[in-house]
Amino acid sequence: MSKAPLSRRLFAEALGSAFLLAAVVGSGIMADSIAGGNVALALLGNTLPTGAMLVVLILVFGPVSGAHFNPAVTLAFALRGEFDRGDVFPYIAAQIIGGVIGVLAAHAMFDLPLIQLSMKIRSGPPQWFAETVATFGLLLTIFGGLARAPMAVPYAVGLYITAAYWFTASTSFANPAVTIARALSDTFAGIAPAGVPAFILAQLAGMLVAVAAARLLWPRENAVAA
Amino acid sequence: MSKAPLSRRLFAEALGSAFLLAAVVGSGIMADSIAGGNVALALLGNTLPTGAMLVVLILVFGPVSGAHFNPAVTLAFALRGEFDRGDVFPYIAAQIIGGVIGVLAAHAMFDLPLIQLSMKIRSGPPQWFAETVATFGLLLTIFGGLARAPMAVPYAVGLYITAAYWFTASTSFANPAVTIARALSDTFAGIAPAGVPAFILAQLAGMLVAVAAARLLWPRENAVAA
Amino acid sequence: MSKAPLSRRLFAEALGSAFLLAAVVGSGIMADSIAGGNVALALLGNTLPTGAMLVVLILVFGPVSGAHFNPAVTLAFALRGEFDRGDVFPYIAAQIIGGVIGVLAAHAMFDLPLIQLSMKIRSGPPQWFAETVATFGLLLTIFGGLARAPMAVPYAVGLYITAAYWFTASTSFANPAVTIARALSDTFAGIAPAGVPAFILAQLAGMLVAVAAARLLWPRENAVAA
Amino acid sequence: MSKAPLSRRLFAEALGSAFLLAAVVGSGIMADSIAGGNVALALLGNTLPTGAMLVVLILVFGPVSGAHFNPAVTLAFALRGEFDRGDVFPYIAAQIIGGVIGVLAAHAMFDLPLIQLSMKIRSGPPQWFAETVATFGLLLTIFGGLARAPMAVPYAVGLYITAAYWFTASTSFANPAVTIARALSDTFAGIAPAGVPAFILAQLAGMLVAVAAARLLWPRENAVAA
Repeated sequence: MSKAPLSRRLFAEALGSAFLLAAVVGSGIMADSIAGGNVALALLGNTLPTGAMLVVLILVFGPVSGAHFNPAVTLAFALRGEFDRGDVFPYIAAQIIGGVIGVLAAHAMFDLPLIQLSMKIRSGPPQWFAETVATFGLLLTIFGGLARAPMAVPYAVGLYITAAYWFTASTSFANPAVTIARALSDTFAGIAPAGVPAFILAQLAGMLVAVAAARLLWPRENAVAA
Repeated sequence: MSKAPLSRRLFAEALGSAFLLAAVVGSGIMADSIAGGNVALALLGNTLPTGAMLVVLILVFGPVSGAHFNPAVTLAFALRGEFDRGDVFPYIAAQIIGGVIGVLAAHAMFDLPLIQLSMKIRSGPPQWFAETVATFGLLLTIFGGLARAPMAVPYAVGLYITAAYWFTASTSFANPAVTIARALSDTFAGIAPAGVPAFILAQLAGMLVAVAAARLLWPRENAVAA
Repeated sequence: MSKAPLSRRLFAEALGSAFLLAAVVGSGIMADSIAGGNVALALLGNTLPTGAMLVVLILVFGPVSGAHFNPAVTLAFALRGEFDRGDVFPYIAAQIIGGVIGVLAAHAMFDLPLIQLSMKIRSGPPQWFAETVATFGLLLTIFGGLARAPMAVPYAVGLYITAAYWFTASTSFANPAVTIARALSDTFAGIAPAGVPAFILAQLAGMLVAVAAARLLWPRENAVAA
Repeated sequence: MSKAPLSRRLFAEALGSAFLLAAVVGSGIMADSIAGGNVALALLGNTLPTGAMLVVLILVFGPVSGAHFNPAVTLAFALRGEFDRGDVFPYIAAQIIGGVIGVLAAHAMFDLPLIQLSMKIRSGPPQWFAETVATFGLLLTIFGGLARAPMAVPYAVGLYITAAYWFTASTSFANPAVTIARALSDTFAGIAPAGVPAFILAQLAGMLVAVAAARLLWPRENAVAA
């Protein structure tokens, strides 16, 4: 992959993160408003657009910025020595700023107040364990895909999150930037701000376990250049 | 891509647009009639066929005509200098005529009056903003896919629209020919004719922003011939 | 594609047709029994397995027999001079016999009487027009896919039928062998035997139109050997 | 495919089996708890994550261990002479241990007692016949895919199980390790322990029929090295 200038990569990270959050929050609003109170239908209407959008965004922006859209992914690549440490903070900033813009765009499209704070409590050890599992699996998906089937990574990530929305009790945030941005929406996909720090810690723990497991599963001498 | 004669390309554009509208309007009629009043189920039964059909139509007709089925796409390629300007109006005419035929076919299959006008009001700044976002994202999907992963474009577009049906408040028309044709159906997928011009303007605005953004994201010297 | 002996190809056609019908009829029984009377949910639970199974069966049996599972497809290839006319009747017989076995297997799995006749009336010009449109589109999907993207055909056919279940008023039988076999099941997916001949005629009409349209869209000199 | 050391392959089998069972059991708990009593919605919310997760796990772990996650698959490859018989028992042990860990993880994420025994009776000849059919089809999918389209196997298996959840009356366990692990969960996806041995026998019968059928369909001289 040729390396684009940092400004272009940051633009891609911010734009992709904005579309990701617009999809997560917007489809949550839509699904919740038309599901007639059936939570399974609402979650289905939130899951399918999120998974589909992830495939699209990684296909479209992957060749520009790597399509991280996720500070846990950026940090993991830096830990593995595959990402320039000087670019970590600009990437994370772009992801968070883009995510917040996406939430605002979703609110604007659905004619809701732009600035909100979620009141939905998401907390407790089972939820935190779920976030650790969710992020662990997401990063294994990315590392394993890149090692042997880089063209399949967009589909693998989209399908992984489609599954993880249902099998993790937290509906799989698995992304610190997404977690922060979703705190700013008092809608279906929101999370009360008080729950954000513990979610992020749980996500980073899952990321560290994945980096260690990947070292055992795909030792570097077998790696294929992505 | 070898270039077929204009008549064959127009036939492909019209036929593909007809199937696209038959799928959008027909599945809307079916889903609405059997969903028992649950709008989320009706939208799900409208979304899956639309997304699936788009993948099929772009796979099948892409090598013949480019599989635009959308005046915003045709205009965007012309603005980028990738499409012969003399073919723009014939393409748009074929898309609109094909789309209308598709709506009539859907009505005939479901034993409804062929000629109808929608009464469903779709209007207001949030809806217009949603159409701008929806078309912006659709065109980024196409430009980004063509730049680096042209074989993935059919899947990317189908998945994008699957997502956009739910995360944009307007259910993502994102296509002037589709908008005009859907004005001729007083069913689930319809739009009252009075709302059509503003939708088209919003779509064209989104298209122009996407053309500008694509110039930053995928400068021409890096482009891969599709 | 190397050509396997006829006996092996007939085994593949019969086995694939059996799994196709087991999927169509079996998922119809399951979905109808647990959907709580909501027809949209029942059709969704019938659509997803059918589309998914088609992808699998064409991937698995395509390299052996071509994975027709459909007399309209076999006849169309013979008309195009791409299939040995002497093999047409053996293929059609294998498809029908396999399909009937699949229906019996579905009944056995769900503990229902093996031999049944459907009482579900499916008739009238709108339904027949829908079958013509459905088969026309199915064959265009196959011809267009084979012309330029043969590896994508399994996915294209599965997605096409996923869409056609919803946008054609007849839920898209589009296959004479499937139509005959479904007459033998008085369950969700059944069709009363009296309606079968007209459905088959409508399907063959759609097939003929597709063969003609394909000649315009993909003239032979541009064909890629599949 | 280069062959990794046994310890690394066992780690991959155990980890993949754990994620598979976490997805099956976890999504069953989630779906059942929010479906408002509609079993079709609950099964849909159990099916989509299971199928999606299978695609991901086979993509990610296939190049390491072959991504069996299933004693019937391991035994079938050994019978075909494609898998070292000395590795069969370690593989099966890793699959069962991993599966049980996945069930425990699902219970922990959803704040349920870790140790449970299912009370859900699944028994009787129709269910056993369904398991035989389900396993027969799963192995044909794998053998046929590997023979000609090895890159498509992850998608084929995920789609096959998506279909089989609905068209087999037993919801397609098709895997002895999964059957044992699901006996340890008194939730939507559970099976009462008394029903386990007959399910496993039915699965092994389906596996043997598939090995025989594959010899006819894909004779070895035509095989492509995977």
